[in-house]
Amino acid sequence: NDRLTLLAGPCAIESYETCAEVAETLKQITDELGINYVFKSSFDKANRSSIDSQRGAGMAAGLKVLAKIKENYHVPIVTDVHEPYQCEPVAEVADVLQIPAYLSRQTDLLLAAGRTGRVVNIKKAQFMAPEDIQTAVDKVATNDQHILVTERGTMFGYHQLVVDMTSLIQMRETGYPVIFDATHSVQVPSGYGNHSGGNRDYAFPLMRAALAIGIDGIFAEVHPNPPEAISDQDSQLYLSKIRPILENANRIFHEHLEMKAVYAHDDLL
Amino acid sequence: NDRLTLLAGPCAIESYETCAEVAETLKQITDELGINYVFKSSFDKANRSSIDSQRGAGMAAGLKVLAKIKENYHVPIVTDVHEPYQCEPVAEVADVLQIPAYLSRQTDLLLAAGRTGRVVNIKKAQFMAPEDIQTAVDKVATNDQHILVTERGTMFGYHQLVVDMTSLIQMRETGYPVIFDATHSVQVPSGYGNHSGGNRDYAFPLMRAALAIGIDGIFAEVHPNPPEAISDQDSQLYLSKIRPILENANRIFHEHLEMKAVYAHDDLL
Amino acid sequence: NDRLTLLAGPCAIESYETCAEVAETLKQITDELGINYVFKSSFDKANRSSIDSQRGAGMAAGLKVLAKIKENYHVPIVTDVHEPYQCEPVAEVADVLQIPAYLSRQTDLLLAAGRTGRVVNIKKAQFMAPEDIQTAVDKVATNDQHILVTERGTMFGYHQLVVDMTSLIQMRETGYPVIFDATHSVQVPSGYGNHSGGNRDYAFPLMRAALAIGIDGIFAEVHPNPPEAISDQDSQLYLSKIRPILENANRIFHEHLEMKAVYAHDDLL
Amino acid sequence: NDRLTLLAGPCAIESYETCAEVAETLKQITDELGINYVFKSSFDKANRSSIDSQRGAGMAAGLKVLAKIKENYHVPIVTDVHEPYQCEPVAEVADVLQIPAYLSRQTDLLLAAGRTGRVVNIKKAQFMAPEDIQTAVDKVATNDQHILVTERGTMFGYHQLVVDMTSLIQMRETGYPVIFDATHSVQVPSGYGNHSGGNRDYAFPLMRAALAIGIDGIFAEVHPNPPEAISDQDSQLYLSKIRPILENANRIFHEHLEMKAVYAHDDLL
Repeated sequence: NDRLTLLAGPCAIESYETCAEVAETLKQITDELGINYVFKSSFDKANRSSIDSQRGAGMAAGLKVLAKIKENYHVPIVTDVHEPYQCEPVAEVADVLQIPAYLSRQTDLLLAAGRTGRVVNIKKAQFMAPEDIQTAVDKVATNDQHILVTERGTMFGYHQLVVDMTSLIQMRETGYPVIFDATHSVQVPSGYGNHSGGNRDYAFPLMRAALAIGIDGIFAEVHPNPPEAISDQDSQLYLSKIRPILENANRIFHEHLEMKAVYAHDDLL
Repeated sequence: NDRLTLLAGPCAIESYETCAEVAETLKQITDELGINYVFKSSFDKANRSSIDSQRGAGMAAGLKVLAKIKENYHVPIVTDVHEPYQCEPVAEVADVLQIPAYLSRQTDLLLAAGRTGRVVNIKKAQFMAPEDIQTAVDKVATNDQHILVTERGTMFGYHQLVVDMTSLIQMRETGYPVIFDATHSVQVPSGYGNHSGGNRDYAFPLMRAALAIGIDGIFAEVHPNPPEAISDQDSQLYLSKIRPILENANRIFHEHLEMKAVYAHDDLL
Repeated sequence: NDRLTLLAGPCAIESYETCAEVAETLKQITDELGINYVFKSSFDKANRSSIDSQRGAGMAAGLKVLAKIKENYHVPIVTDVHEPYQCEPVAEVADVLQIPAYLSRQTDLLLAAGRTGRVVNIKKAQFMAPEDIQTAVDKVATNDQHILVTERGTMFGYHQLVVDMTSLIQMRETGYPVIFDATHSVQVPSGYGNHSGGNRDYAFPLMRAALAIGIDGIFAEVHPNPPEAISDQDSQLYLSKIRPILENANRIFHEHLEMKAVYAHDDLL
Repeated sequence: NDRLTLLAGPCAIESYETCAEVAETLKQITDELGINYVFKSSFDKANRSSIDSQRGAGMAAGLKVLAKIKENYHVPIVTDVHEPYQCEPVAEVADVLQIPAYLSRQTDLLLAAGRTGRVVNIKKAQFMAPEDIQTAVDKVATNDQHILVTERGTMFGYHQLVVDMTSLIQMRETGYPVIFDATHSVQVPSGYGNHSGGNRDYAFPLMRAALAIGIDGIFAEVHPNPPEAISDQDSQLYLSKIRPILENANRIFHEHLEMKAVYAHDDLL
């Protein structure tokens, strides 16, 4: 594909209003820039570090919000599924079902997501080697060939993630589009003891690096006011600052396409 | 507690006969040695690397086998749960519900397991820092105070696990009994590309090391013929070789108890 | 500085002829492209995995070759020092003294290199956190303010390196120019048991990623015939393929400068 | 050998008096317990994190102190060498030359140490896989067959070490005695930014674990007043608390010997 794809939105469905504000702004910017846009938000944060953390709207209420966003802003929707039974109802609203990284080895969830016929975005687990995403892909591909694979960082010692940029090249071997999740990759897992921290400032540089390596899309959590978000306060991007980031990301994306067109592969690798 | 606990049995419920053979032998040895024994086997291998790997008996058939083992050999039972809906039916048979390591951050599963009132054995995820087991414990403890925490190795680079023995000390801070899983700790994740390998020979030395640090129990997968098992062929222990291993493990366990009784803690730490 | 810097040449000084071939070609390409070029080659491979591996020309013979290259091709020279006593004689020829990564905590070597007044290029150790390069910088800066800091990958499990691209941002905090070593970063340490392997194909993509993050220079080993080199056969780049790589690298370097000029920093980070 | 070996003493040679106090006490305890004792102290801390940290007595003054300790307390001596030229003068006093972990790939240092004919204790680098110690051993063994290999922890993410207890088994494959360094293994590298921290409380449990795995000796830094030491304040053991630790360590050592004598290897592994 010759257009950059963006999966973005607030981490959790906090309210219709928050979702709408993000969807409207991102739809407008991506239309101007020629970027494919998919609205992302989660109805349940099912693996929060702490039992005391907020989990979001819940499935029934969350899907209603997502359906309304889809209708009002004409954007496709991506959201997480956590248990096999959720796949069917979620697929009635969402165009893309997302497999959370921690669950990317759960066979039944991958099979159930595949059976819906929707696109399935598999996040590579923090504990999974890049080439092993193939085994997760194989589980979905039993039923469905519309798959995305997403890099979101790899565990590196306790409370640390590292992005191995070569994973983007290795995941391309699956034959499916590769997405780079720029905001979860900068998390500091359980960095505050009972909740995760993050280095928001690294999201844009890592996004540029991933685009320079060559990817098909970007995943990013974007919020009108990240410090007040119910989750990922340290890693979500400010909606008000997103335009120059996407402009520049799009530029690197196209520079990479041109580079591939100009240079013979054999002379570069 | 002044007796060693052993959670052991074949990795997957392959047949009643295999389970019975293991249960009978382990019951007899542990009775002789004064070890508390809990029979372990899984009705579903829900996160196999490959879609083509066998998954075991399934929940309904598996629980029947476990009930029969319990009745015939008078042993308590531990088995895994993978989704919240399984906790209730499993708790009708199992005395201990086990949370698989990859799922040890899934809040709903931990809550559902806790609601059964059964003992819950939480395996610390391969991506989780030792002190963060507290957040998983807190989720179960909302409903239930009967908890075990288990070390089973930590991701160390791709396709590698390492056992951080200090985690056994840190997990003790939760106040709950600490178990060392000697056979999953020696796995080589996805070591064969589409299935995991293992270093069976390291299971006994690591078990000794963990007992020397000080633990309450051992978890080990034991099979009459590991190379023919449907899973974990390289890491399950031979039933025929288990007696001297348990004899010696028990000896180290009691040496540790004596050491703590003889020496003043302040002079040692 | 508004020009990209390149430190490049054959890994080891195998012969004057090999060095001359590389220096001539790289000097010509970098002059055309407006890149600052520094010729690199090592007179001793002092930390080969195996005692049986070749180590190169030795200091006396090696410095003669480097002096001749400098005179004939009008290029500044960078080469490694391994012990404090080498710094003075090396500094008579070399414009940049390089501290090998494994030795980047050896205080006497850093002090001796700094005392020469030459530029000192400190390679960050594979075991060193990015912010800790400051302690190595402080040792050189006692005597000398001309310092470069180089990323060359970080240990990640056994026999694995990972490039943490955020380290390039963190190392910039020292205030000194940041170099990315594209060919050592793709090594597989002791990948063949008694010598290291490498993934040459990842060097160019990682170079692009590092340039997209923002660096001042590139380090790369380049050889007329890498498979026949006496070291780093799997990671050195082919001299015959280097032109398009440098053209594209230079383009990303300037895109990054433009990006910084166009966008307000506050809107991006 | 059927006796435990102990390499122990203050981290740095701070004064003759400190060294004498430690040597006298340890000599007496180890004589009582039947442990082979080698006095350890370093004349130079050559790789301190910070340029401002104290480095110790220096080689000339340090060797004088070590010679006097040897003479007065009838103990063999182990001390570090950092550059090849040091090996000869050090070998005039020291019975064991120790290769610091960071330097365990420096071929010239290993060769020079081997040429002295003294025992060479090679510390496995924090970045080295266990089986790769063989390449370091081969370099010493060119000249000398009296070798010890020491585990002191492996890098695990930034600012973290982990002890992989299976390394003790793998290093045994070299055929040389295996030592466990209980106090450097609990360091927190650069844990305080410009100097290292440590978890002294883990040294004894890890020592027990290593002895349970099976080792030939223990390395430990011991100081009359660790918080006032010039280095490793958080990891050195208190001289006043060392007796029960050594008593118990010796007991585990002999339990391991008995275990090996009683059980057939094939039934345990």
